[in-house]
Amino acid sequence: MSLFLDVVPVSEAIEVVQGIARAPLCEYVALEYALYRALAKDVSADIDIPGFDRSTVDGYAVTAADTTGASEAIPAMLGCLGKVGMGSTDPGAISPGRCRYVPTGGALPRGADAVAMIEHAEVIGDDVLVHRSVAPGENVVFRGEDFRAGQVVLEGGRILSPRDIGVAAAVGAARVSVVIPPVIGIISTGNELVPAAETPGPGEVRDANSYLVGAFVAERGCRPVHFGIIRDERDALGSAVSSALDRCDAVLVSGGSSKDERDNTAAVIADLGEVLVHGIAIAPGKPTIIGTAREKPVIGLPGHPASTFVVLVAIVDYLLAAMRETTVSRRTLRARLTQNVPSTRGREDYIRVRVGDGEATPVFGKSGLLNTLVQSEGLVRIPASSEGLEVGEEVEVILW
Amino acid sequence: MSLFLDVVPVSEAIEVVQGIARAPLCEYVALEYALYRALAKDVSADIDIPGFDRSTVDGYAVTAADTTGASEAIPAMLGCLGKVGMGSTDPGAISPGRCRYVPTGGALPRGADAVAMIEHAEVIGDDVLVHRSVAPGENVVFRGEDFRAGQVVLEGGRILSPRDIGVAAAVGAARVSVVIPPVIGIISTGNELVPAAETPGPGEVRDANSYLVGAFVAERGCRPVHFGIIRDERDALGSAVSSALDRCDAVLVSGGSSKDERDNTAAVIADLGEVLVHGIAIAPGKPTIIGTAREKPVIGLPGHPASTFVVLVAIVDYLLAAMRETTVSRRTLRARLTQNVPSTRGREDYIRVRVGDGEATPVFGKSGLLNTLVQSEGLVRIPASSEGLEVGEEVEVILW
Repeated sequence: MSLFLDVVPVSEAIEVVQGIARAPLCEYVALEYALYRALAKDVSADIDIPGFDRSTVDGYAVTAADTTGASEAIPAMLGCLGKVGMGSTDPGAISPGRCRYVPTGGALPRGADAVAMIEHAEVIGDDVLVHRSVAPGENVVFRGEDFRAGQVVLEGGRILSPRDIGVAAAVGAARVSVVIPPVIGIISTGNELVPAAETPGPGEVRDANSYLVGAFVAERGCRPVHFGIIRDERDALGSAVSSALDRCDAVLVSGGSSKDERDNTAAVIADLGEVLVHGIAIAPGKPTIIGTAREKPVIGLPGHPASTFVVLVAIVDYLLAAMRETTVSRRTLRARLTQNVPSTRGREDYIRVRVGDGEATPVFGKSGLLNTLVQSEGLVRIPASSEGLEVGEEVEVILW
Repeated sequence: MSLFLDVVPVSEAIEVVQGIARAPLCEYVALEYALYRALAKDVSADIDIPGFDRSTVDGYAVTAADTTGASEAIPAMLGCLGKVGMGSTDPGAISPGRCRYVPTGGALPRGADAVAMIEHAEVIGDDVLVHRSVAPGENVVFRGEDFRAGQVVLEGGRILSPRDIGVAAAVGAARVSVVIPPVIGIISTGNELVPAAETPGPGEVRDANSYLVGAFVAERGCRPVHFGIIRDERDALGSAVSSALDRCDAVLVSGGSSKDERDNTAAVIADLGEVLVHGIAIAPGKPTIIGTAREKPVIGLPGHPASTFVVLVAIVDYLLAAMRETTVSRRTLRARLTQNVPSTRGREDYIRVRVGDGEATPVFGKSGLLNTLVQSEGLVRIPASSEGLEVGEEVEVILW
């Protein structure tokens, strides 16, 4: 194993993490518990939706031809045969010259092919005067017009949104097959780290990465499991990673801001398995490590939270998506840069920005500052082929 | 109580729902369980962050003045006093003409005011040759430079993101005060409704709204509680709403696509309390009802899921945000319309759109279609003052 950083492009790192993700396990869950779960199998309509020709307004079901030429001055007069009840199993029928009241969502009587809105009708005893002509199909959703029986309504791999949950209910998918959240072991390493609840002494800092990585993993529909803060010793780190591998589907080791620690993480991965990538052409985040052990992904993240977060967004997101057999879906927006941003060719730079009014303003700051994480709204990626971006240039912002 | 629809503008409806939201209860939770919770109290830094002057690189801590004019040709030669260990309680000191190795994240020795990167240094026995000059403060984050002790780091009302969780850990907020999720009672009404798990008979449809509304409420950090499908009878609906009021902080009644049912929901709210708004100048969603009973909000939503969803986004979102003492935060983007969209002055129209490549394409379809919910990516709001939008016009898309 070489510890020399032979950096690979971001695109290659993404391919590597996608290649080492194993297929997930799946389970059926009741639909009301499926929000944000990754759908494992397509959801299809079991029956035509709607199951019958349905009115979209309160009005009178008619034969459209009966209303041809109807106007305020010369209304069509139709004999009213009564009312269709909501949910009634038989909406009855009409014949030419007749109509029947139908509420919004009610079934069209046989023989009707349109509905005249109540606002355009007038009741005179047993008759209804319709003041406007209606075209065939007007104010009606026909059987199967929304979804046909057997039609795929939601494709596997989709992350279920509230709208998806509603639509799944409509097509009878009261249980859905979803991916079981992959379990992600999280380890922080570094002799300077103390738990968040403690007050750091001289030279010490709190372990923010465990929380940051854990919350990121949870947001991506995985289950974070914490294996604590490990001292920067090869044996200690090795046994922590080994324990985590026993219990988890992947392990994320953060820490190793310093070269010694980076070496340690890489050495531990090499002891247990194989280092596939040691160094990515990305800033911040260059010393990221990608490896496998016992056929499970093991990732070495930078020690500083602000750098770690960029690697989570740029690389780890693809691993977690692949482990759930879904795709990375991001909110992005286009905005104009308010200032020049220099960059180094051959390396993808990720710049934190604030956004507003169509403008993206870089939040510069020393690389070791946490406050840029809460004072920015997203990242702008500067491709490796670029030497920088110019003020006024339109860029894509990855919102976080 | 008048059942005549005296519609109010959307802005007024929002003010009404904000006015009837009661202050939430709060609780302390461990930070790792606080993702997406609404922060009830400001989080402040308990100490200066970082707590000491810290190197942002692997390199040699120096007195910057010692490196003035240093170059490849004429390096500065400094005696090396050793190494600062990560997390060591005492980084030692240097004096002019001396340096000390410090890893990324390590504490600066006393007397040092900058760090020369290891890439620009060369070790010769006990000496280090520095090939570039460094400015005072270079590659150093000073004590308190990230956050000052006492400084507010995260403001109350914020919905905690993964980044926020990481930053809270860094400032020692291992427990945070968050809003207890408001409990929202959900009722579907309509004689035509059957549960999602059943196959609808003639004239029947599945209750998609309970699922849609429940998932929306859950996405907004509230706890949905389902009170089932209630027949469209005043007594039955009245007792269901009453039960829900006993157990919940607010009640959402969906259904009432037809005028009779709308009347019923309004009548039940009037029986138990007061109808404040009956009809909103919004399309779809006009027959929405806003009321209170036992000092709790009760909202009547349209019966059709596609209409209900617009009202959830345009109105109910503001209620749920107010109940959590947070603000509605939306992902929006600007895009150009690919076609004309007519609208009616005096009414806010919400148009479903697909977005891509900076363009928003309206997804038209009969109002009763569910498939528009899954085939669109957001809503474009057409203000009440507008008679429509023109092709090529730049619009704001509310992403869902």
